[in-house]
Amino acid sequence: MPDRLPMDTLPAFAALNDLARRPLDLTAPGALNPARIKAMVCQGAGFTLHYAAQRVDDTVLDRLQELADQSGAVDQFLAMQQGAIANRIDGQESENRQVLHTATRDLFTEPPREPKATAQARGELDRLATFLADLDSGRLTAPNGETFTDLVNIGIGGSDLGPRAVYLALQAFRRPDRQIHFIANVDPDDAAAVLAPLDLSRTLVNVVSKSGSTLETLTNEELARTAFLSAGLDPRQHFLAVTGEHSPMDNPDHYLRAFHMFDYIGGRYSTTSMVGGVMLGFALGMESFLDILKGAHAMDRAAETRALRHNPALLLALLGIWNRNFLDCDTVAILPYSQALHRFTAHLQQCDMESNGKSITRQGAAVGYHTGPIVWGEAGTNGQHAFYQLIHQGTTTVPVEFIGFRQCQYGRDRQVQATFSQEKLVANLLAQSLALAIGQAHANPNKRFPGNRPNTLILADRLTPESMGALLALYENKVALQGFVWNINSFDQEGVQLGKLLATRLLDHFAGQRNDPAYNGQASDPLGWALLETTGLLAK
Amino acid sequence: MPDRLPMDTLPAFAALNDLARRPLDLTAPGALNPARIKAMVCQGAGFTLHYAAQRVDDTVLDRLQELADQSGAVDQFLAMQQGAIANRIDGQESENRQVLHTATRDLFTEPPREPKATAQARGELDRLATFLADLDSGRLTAPNGETFTDLVNIGIGGSDLGPRAVYLALQAFRRPDRQIHFIANVDPDDAAAVLAPLDLSRTLVNVVSKSGSTLETLTNEELARTAFLSAGLDPRQHFLAVTGEHSPMDNPDHYLRAFHMFDYIGGRYSTTSMVGGVMLGFALGMESFLDILKGAHAMDRAAETRALRHNPALLLALLGIWNRNFLDCDTVAILPYSQALHRFTAHLQQCDMESNGKSITRQGAAVGYHTGPIVWGEAGTNGQHAFYQLIHQGTTTVPVEFIGFRQCQYGRDRQVQATFSQEKLVANLLAQSLALAIGQAHANPNKRFPGNRPNTLILADRLTPESMGALLALYENKVALQGFVWNINSFDQEGVQLGKLLATRLLDHFAGQRNDPAYNGQASDPLGWALLETTGLLAK
Repeated sequence: MPDRLPMDTLPAFAALNDLARRPLDLTAPGALNPARIKAMVCQGAGFTLHYAAQRVDDTVLDRLQELADQSGAVDQFLAMQQGAIANRIDGQESENRQVLHTATRDLFTEPPREPKATAQARGELDRLATFLADLDSGRLTAPNGETFTDLVNIGIGGSDLGPRAVYLALQAFRRPDRQIHFIANVDPDDAAAVLAPLDLSRTLVNVVSKSGSTLETLTNEELARTAFLSAGLDPRQHFLAVTGEHSPMDNPDHYLRAFHMFDYIGGRYSTTSMVGGVMLGFALGMESFLDILKGAHAMDRAAETRALRHNPALLLALLGIWNRNFLDCDTVAILPYSQALHRFTAHLQQCDMESNGKSITRQGAAVGYHTGPIVWGEAGTNGQHAFYQLIHQGTTTVPVEFIGFRQCQYGRDRQVQATFSQEKLVANLLAQSLALAIGQAHANPNKRFPGNRPNTLILADRLTPESMGALLALYENKVALQGFVWNINSFDQEGVQLGKLLATRLLDHFAGQRNDPAYNGQASDPLGWALLETTGLLAK
Repeated sequence: MPDRLPMDTLPAFAALNDLARRPLDLTAPGALNPARIKAMVCQGAGFTLHYAAQRVDDTVLDRLQELADQSGAVDQFLAMQQGAIANRIDGQESENRQVLHTATRDLFTEPPREPKATAQARGELDRLATFLADLDSGRLTAPNGETFTDLVNIGIGGSDLGPRAVYLALQAFRRPDRQIHFIANVDPDDAAAVLAPLDLSRTLVNVVSKSGSTLETLTNEELARTAFLSAGLDPRQHFLAVTGEHSPMDNPDHYLRAFHMFDYIGGRYSTTSMVGGVMLGFALGMESFLDILKGAHAMDRAAETRALRHNPALLLALLGIWNRNFLDCDTVAILPYSQALHRFTAHLQQCDMESNGKSITRQGAAVGYHTGPIVWGEAGTNGQHAFYQLIHQGTTTVPVEFIGFRQCQYGRDRQVQATFSQEKLVANLLAQSLALAIGQAHANPNKRFPGNRPNTLILADRLTPESMGALLALYENKVALQGFVWNINSFDQEGVQLGKLLATRLLDHFAGQRNDPAYNGQASDPLGWALLETTGLLAK
């Protein structure tokens, strides 16, 4: 990998710190003007980014460009795509893996950046195409001879959030005869509520776990298998698996079909692998899944451009760093003006916060600056009637990334009071961007808006499989590029381990007490045992 | 209203600032110990709060108690319930209203705190009971003689989030023959996706808007009326209204039934009024809705206690202020370990951030300290596989409020690998609380957890209508009590106005251009017009 220096050792860092003492005041007369609005646009892969409402001028953008260049962010992104061991911490025990989720969609331009991984992706895609063709042609049916109508996806985290967000986003493109349901939570009420109304005889179950050892997923698979057996059905004829090669789940005898993902694909980057492929292919058809890959690939290529003014992912990454490290904002709100994207932010919470919620450099030293922000948000216009009060008039500045589309998905729209709903939607989108930037003076202090609340508009023509893929990759690439600038490892997740360890110890107490009424965990685990006793969780 | 001084003028404020220089270190040997875990418990209305993992000791708690006392927070809460004009800014044009959402459930102890409002609530409840009884008995049917099976709720913000969160939380208690659907967003795809699969002939539509003039709601009502007319159905026999007295929607001729809410109930506090009542009563039955009110009322009474160690809402409020104002945390994550509560945090985003995302005091001066935090979160254990990485190892401290239950809702649980799913769920809940507090030392810097990440466990036996009501009121009261301490008006929402104003101007351009191809908005609105041109939204 090229370069890999702490961000605060780069010359541009100090220059940006100086500039941040007097950031552009968007509320100053004429600061936000039509020429600026027209100039500050970045295009790529079907999207336009409008960033006139960020607190940057050309000087700041030039220094951000230098920061990107000095960190070698784009070179590292290229190296990542070509198979570098990007997932590692120097001199420490770490995962030491390649990071090749981009290879899963590197199918549309020759030669691919990493031919071996792309060949593996093609192999899985071919097997998926065969499976889906068998379903479509009726060569493969449910044991009762009927078609499969439903698929229950059992997975959590990366095996749930991304595929679920994309499935919900593309309901307008769903096959009317096929539906997906989701079980993620180990909460037994999740599985109970999902399974109860289904006709299991026509249902597939897709069990997704890269490691093949995820507690929640194995538990829910077991609950689902029991439900099938109770209904007199053979799970072997209904259950699919998506898992890592050689994982404990990689056992074709237990599944109708098994598909692979590879150790160079992180869970939170796996939507374009078989993790998303099996269920999206089932619901949307193979062609739509390939369209998703096509859009994602176009955005990957766009992310290779060194000039941030012409690279949407790099621009988004560096504007984010400006707001996070130089203007001191702890959070970023991602607000899609599209009801179909109502779970996209939940996916981004994992993609971003699990990647960049880190405190050590790739050399194992403590970072001397903030890394990943807290990502949150809901669909607009709904959010306007919820938390926008704080964004406009609260004491904490929240940078916003707005997402919108020029056309709606269904085309079922009507004029009410002289305008269409889609017009009302995008008018609100633009109005919020402006209002946050320029604010409002007023004699009544309660009607004052301070303005200077930075935001970007991210627009495309219509939310389709292709633009969905591009949007997904835009954020994946933003996150990776930010990690490269911050000099952190965006591809591991050691922070989830301690909770797992302590949970296992607590579970031993539950099992211990069931086997032996005299069991007492106080000596081995004084804090956990005290918590169990005090909360009344043992004595149910 | 009693007292009403800026928080930083109260003597306890300076004392707390001093204490915050060296907050309790939960990672110090023995700091978090079994005795502390057993002592730091607060009970009320069926809930226990376990707060040993907060960075407070008895001294801090005593000073927080003084801060509460000096601000007169509980006295103001009592005055609010008794009808004080709590929604006002002194000396400025403001709403000048009473704040009486607690009166909607003050039905279970005599005398009520504000008899007139409670009498109005009883009047509406009686009318609701009659309506539901007519449905149950078959006296009232769909025009085709069949029962009504579905209800589409059209509302946004407070007319959507709270009732929706509660409905989803109580699916286990839903009547199997009745379902609710939601249209909130002005995005035309929202209404299109919701209406398409319904049998409108057996569907009620509940239109909810306190003002009777909410853009999204009126637009979606119009889309829904058109759909009914296209299906040959008379909206007058299907549409219900919940609105303020004398609002533009308050027209019985347009609706099968109309129910009232009153100007002393804010949208975000309206779940226990008819806003929640009509749809929850339809789906869960009248008795369950009354159970919700009963739980909420119990928590209201518990919130009148002056001792914060014995008042869950006050304790939660003051611990929040400690983390927000003295330990400088911008956000709070609310993480329910219950899949049924998966939309509860979205409701709290409005309840909290629209209430307390304010920058001026009730005297119209700029506040000299932070007010409401950013509220965010998703259900556990799902979140553990998403954003917990950042909470454990990121550079920003995120205080957490965990919510959990000792038993599951459905009782459909199974042992897998020696433990039940519910045990796995609560073991993870306790493990996360511990892990965040105590952290972990390690030779590998990537496996270090800094700890000292404050959190509270909020527990009840089971998620039922009654405990749901208590939980709802716990947070409503927390938010109000925090607002009293911060000396802000938690009951208005001026911050939503500017966006509405600018959106209206943009909508005029859409309509203008449609009526006159030569229309040009550049002169009247240079920024809005430039944005419309640059984004390509005009030339669709």
